[in-house]
Amino acid sequence: MRKEMFDHEITILRDTYRRLLRRHARTNLIKLTTKTHPADLATVFRYFTEDEQNQAFALMKDDEHTAEFLAELDDALVQDLLQEESPERIASIIEKAPANDQSDILGALSEERAQSVLELLEQEEQEELAELMGYPEDSAGAMMTTDVFTLHEGITSGDAIKTLQDQEDAEMVFYLYVTDDDNCLVGVVSLRALTITSSDTKLKDIMIKRVHSVRPETDQEDVARVVAQYNFLAVPVIDPDEHLLGIVTVDDVVDVIREEATEDFLQMAGAGKDREILLKSSWGNARARLPWLFASWVGGIIAVSLIGAFEHMLESIILLAAFIPVIIGMGGNIGTQSSTIIVRGMATGRIDVGGELKVIFKEMRVGLILGALYGLLLGFFANFAFKNAPPNLGLVVGLSICVSMLVAATVGTVIPLILRKLDIDPAVATGPFVTTSIDILGVLFYFIIAGTFLAV
Amino acid sequence: MRKEMFDHEITILRDTYRRLLRRHARTNLIKLTTKTHPADLATVFRYFTEDEQNQAFALMKDDEHTAEFLAELDDALVQDLLQEESPERIASIIEKAPANDQSDILGALSEERAQSVLELLEQEEQEELAELMGYPEDSAGAMMTTDVFTLHEGITSGDAIKTLQDQEDAEMVFYLYVTDDDNCLVGVVSLRALTITSSDTKLKDIMIKRVHSVRPETDQEDVARVVAQYNFLAVPVIDPDEHLLGIVTVDDVVDVIREEATEDFLQMAGAGKDREILLKSSWGNARARLPWLFASWVGGIIAVSLIGAFEHMLESIILLAAFIPVIIGMGGNIGTQSSTIIVRGMATGRIDVGGELKVIFKEMRVGLILGALYGLLLGFFANFAFKNAPPNLGLVVGLSICVSMLVAATVGTVIPLILRKLDIDPAVATGPFVTTSIDILGVLFYFIIAGTFLAV
Repeated sequence: MRKEMFDHEITILRDTYRRLLRRHARTNLIKLTTKTHPADLATVFRYFTEDEQNQAFALMKDDEHTAEFLAELDDALVQDLLQEESPERIASIIEKAPANDQSDILGALSEERAQSVLELLEQEEQEELAELMGYPEDSAGAMMTTDVFTLHEGITSGDAIKTLQDQEDAEMVFYLYVTDDDNCLVGVVSLRALTITSSDTKLKDIMIKRVHSVRPETDQEDVARVVAQYNFLAVPVIDPDEHLLGIVTVDDVVDVIREEATEDFLQMAGAGKDREILLKSSWGNARARLPWLFASWVGGIIAVSLIGAFEHMLESIILLAAFIPVIIGMGGNIGTQSSTIIVRGMATGRIDVGGELKVIFKEMRVGLILGALYGLLLGFFANFAFKNAPPNLGLVVGLSICVSMLVAATVGTVIPLILRKLDIDPAVATGPFVTTSIDILGVLFYFIIAGTFLAV
Repeated sequence: MRKEMFDHEITILRDTYRRLLRRHARTNLIKLTTKTHPADLATVFRYFTEDEQNQAFALMKDDEHTAEFLAELDDALVQDLLQEESPERIASIIEKAPANDQSDILGALSEERAQSVLELLEQEEQEELAELMGYPEDSAGAMMTTDVFTLHEGITSGDAIKTLQDQEDAEMVFYLYVTDDDNCLVGVVSLRALTITSSDTKLKDIMIKRVHSVRPETDQEDVARVVAQYNFLAVPVIDPDEHLLGIVTVDDVVDVIREEATEDFLQMAGAGKDREILLKSSWGNARARLPWLFASWVGGIIAVSLIGAFEHMLESIILLAAFIPVIIGMGGNIGTQSSTIIVRGMATGRIDVGGELKVIFKEMRVGLILGALYGLLLGFFANFAFKNAPPNLGLVVGLSICVSMLVAATVGTVIPLILRKLDIDPAVATGPFVTTSIDILGVLFYFIIAGTFLAV
């Protein structure tokens, strides 16, 4: 299946839906919904108008398929869709879903609505859900499946296989977790180890004892890192007493990795961190982006005042103004390169704690190499392109480009490293922060250099 | 395990290694290497000096553990490490590794060296490897495991379990793929379905017949999309005649998703697409970033000429020059926001083919809202901050900000959409391309507006 094919299939599905919706073909719509994968339904729903969404959702059955669809759907759309729905229908849709899907769906609703749905569920489920929803957002606790298959260390491999065969619910057994008398996690057994040992071997003799685990409060990004590092299919979540609370499975980790990358992209571009920004209204979208632009507006005002202060220089050599965009532009671009390389390098574990100075010096060398090169290129251009240029203009412009690029590479490297030291997500403020500081520094150095080498 | 704990463990490991290396503590080094996870070894190697890397590698055994470590290691480091190594040792390290790890490792070497290692392997392995290495880089074929466990549709579930128990090699059985007489993939059976049906049921009666599959030439990004969309643990790779060639497993997909995100980050920042850029020398690093800066250099030259053409306006109102950075800066920032939102939206399937116009108009609305707001803010500032300003300066500056931001949001949205239409990766040229076009357009509109409203 090539990319075009995947997109093509989704497009066909969307168009088929639209046609049936226009014709109000109830029976066909229900049939199509039943045989479409919940994840595909969630994708086409993004492309529907609100009216189409409501129509299509009204025809969905109150079953697990619909619950899975809601769990896959973007939060903003879940909220819109369930806004008008009765708590009874919502409860009836989610009652058979796994606890983490339930908590996902309820998490998208207002607290009040979530509460009224919660009250309609069974007592036991209510408690489990309340616990799950109590964990911080984006933590291992919030994303774990509590539906784990555990076995006591004392039973034999033969009995384990029998128990496994009787399990109806554990839809996907990844690993068999082994517990002791106190219900603490003491080991893990692979399905294969189970099948190839003689049936009277005790689990404690074949289990692997060193199990990598996380805590419920562990950030999802760190859970993803562990799973990715060791190629796990699942990682157990334990409390301080080593009781097994649940597992985080690799399919959820895949989603986390994509989501975290999207958040980093948006943050570095100064566009907030809401990965569903495309689903917002124009006003909501503008509001999310407004504060970051304010930072660059303040920087702009500083640059205006700075240039205003050097007005006398511009008056005598008007051509100086023409080179402002290229000097700050080249600086901005190399600074963005540096900060992106550094932020991503930290996210993928390529910059170790303690190795920061080496990284800074290297980026400075790169800044100097590229600055010298483009400085020469621009210097020659400035000298030969303008007949009425003062003799030193080439020197000033070339040197300024070089300094601006060196400073920009340094700033672009140092800012994210400092943010990490301060325990602030380096992606948050890097983008607009870096380009704005570079605008100001670039202009400042430019006029200082011009003042030094030109008789003004 | 919190993030700090993960980083902390890696730091301890690195420091322990360094201490042992300094003391030339051979026995302890060998012990430490054996009990450390290959992925952790690969991580600490990034932080070693070349000398430390060579020392540590010299002590590693020629076994699967070492092969796994090399498969996890960054390509640039594999190349450095194996440069001086005899083909015999390399062959002896990789001979027992899975074919896709072998091809990974050999892929990092020069063609000549890879060939001389290849010749030392068994005939059968040589052929398999040659085939794998023949697939395009970053394709399903290049990343698949050929070590797949298949069963004939005619056998019973009882026999299937017996065969499974005799399997020594298939380290991780995800799904049981079922084939027909012609060795074509006809279905898939879950381990659970196998264990809960009576032992004389034939596989063809319990298998799921509609199997999602990919082709060997499918791009790894699309493979990742399929696995992520349907929460698969593995996806089969088939040829046009439906013969099963191998499977791509979720752990490799996790790596692909991270790698693709890194590449997109670097490309959007105009820093090439080599995700190992941090491992390059300063010169190599500068060379990778140079071409993208050239684009913004050319744009800068155009801006210089443009401003030069409006020199007469600057001569009469020198203050106009002071506002150039803020006008192109605000434009550049909103343009970067837009292009990032669009590029990421396309990567995560949030912008459907056919819905482009809607997206463009929405971004234009956002550009207009934010442009009007910041235009007003800057217009007032321009009017009141400078006593000797011409009466219309506030109007000119405010209107220019507004136009610049509207144009920037539009350009930032349209460029990636056009690139997708042309089947070019939108991340490639978006970053520097967008900011450079905005620099030029911003300056142009600024002077046109100034010419209209100021008597110059």
